[in-house]
Amino acid sequence: MTLALSTTLHTSFADAVERTRTALSEQGFGVLTEIDMKATLKSKLGEDIEDYLILGACNPPLAHRAVTVDRQIGLLLPCNVVVRADPNDPHTIVVDAMNPQLMVQVAEQPGLAEVAADATTALRAAIDSLRTDSAES
Amino acid sequence: MTLALSTTLHTSFADAVERTRTALSEQGFGVLTEIDMKATLKSKLGEDIEDYLILGACNPPLAHRAVTVDRQIGLLLPCNVVVRADPNDPHTIVVDAMNPQLMVQVAEQPGLAEVAADATTALRAAIDSLRTDSAES
Repeated sequence: MTLALSTTLHTSFADAVERTRTALSEQGFGVLTEIDMKATLKSKLGEDIEDYLILGACNPPLAHRAVTVDRQIGLLLPCNVVVRADPNDPHTIVVDAMNPQLMVQVAEQPGLAEVAADATTALRAAIDSLRTDSAES
Repeated sequence: MTLALSTTLHTSFADAVERTRTALSEQGFGVLTEIDMKATLKSKLGEDIEDYLILGACNPPLAHRAVTVDRQIGLLLPCNVVVRADPNDPHTIVVDAMNPQLMVQVAEQPGLAEVAADATTALRAAIDSLRTDSAES
C-alpha cells in the first residue's frame, strides 16, 4: 500500500492550490482545515521550507459512515491533501492525498473496507482530474 | 500497534476538552485545527452523534523533524487528538491521541522512528496527565 495518492503539476503553487480545492469540491469534499506549514515553521522556529499547505478534506457522508463503523477513526479524519512545491523547483507542485486504505490497514475494522474503497475512488478521481486538466502527469 | 493512545475521564465534555488543551500545551503541542464532528454531521447530513471534537495538535520542532525526514509525512500531520463522549453515557469522555508509531508503520522511512518515539513520549505524557489530574483511568 502506498501512503499517498499523488500527482505532479507544472504550474504555480497558487494555481495548484486553487485547482486542488475545485477538484476536491467536485468530488464532495469540503476543506474543513488548512495548515500553512511553511508559515507555521517560519513563525514558530524560524525555519524555511518550500510552499507546503495541508488541506483537511471531508466528505460528510463518507465521514459519517466511517465513524459509524469505528468511533476511533476520527484519528484519521479529515483526509489530508498536501499541496507542496518541489524543494528544487518552485513551479513543480506535488499534490498528495492520504490513501484511505490506510484506515483499513491500521484500524483493523473489516467494516471500514467499503467506506475506504469509496473514499479512495473519490480522492483518486479528484487527483486524476488535476492531471487531466493540464495534460500533465 | 494500537491506533490510539487513550484514556477515559468521568467529567463533562467541556471540562475534558479544556483539560486536554492544557495537557497538550504543557507538552509543546499547539492546537492548529478543530473539527466539531457532531455539529458538522448535524449541519451537513442532519445526523446526530455524541459530542465529538477532533483537535489537530502540532509540536513544531517534532513536525519540522518529521518533514525533514519525509516530505510526505504532512499526510499524517497534525497529530489528531479526539475528545468524544461515550455514546451511552455523556459524562464518560474518551480521549484518543493518534499513536505516532503509525507514521513509522505506514511511511516505511526508518529515519522517522526517532521522531515518532519522541512524539509518542510527549503525547503519552499528555494523555497520562489527564488521568493523573483526576485519579481516573
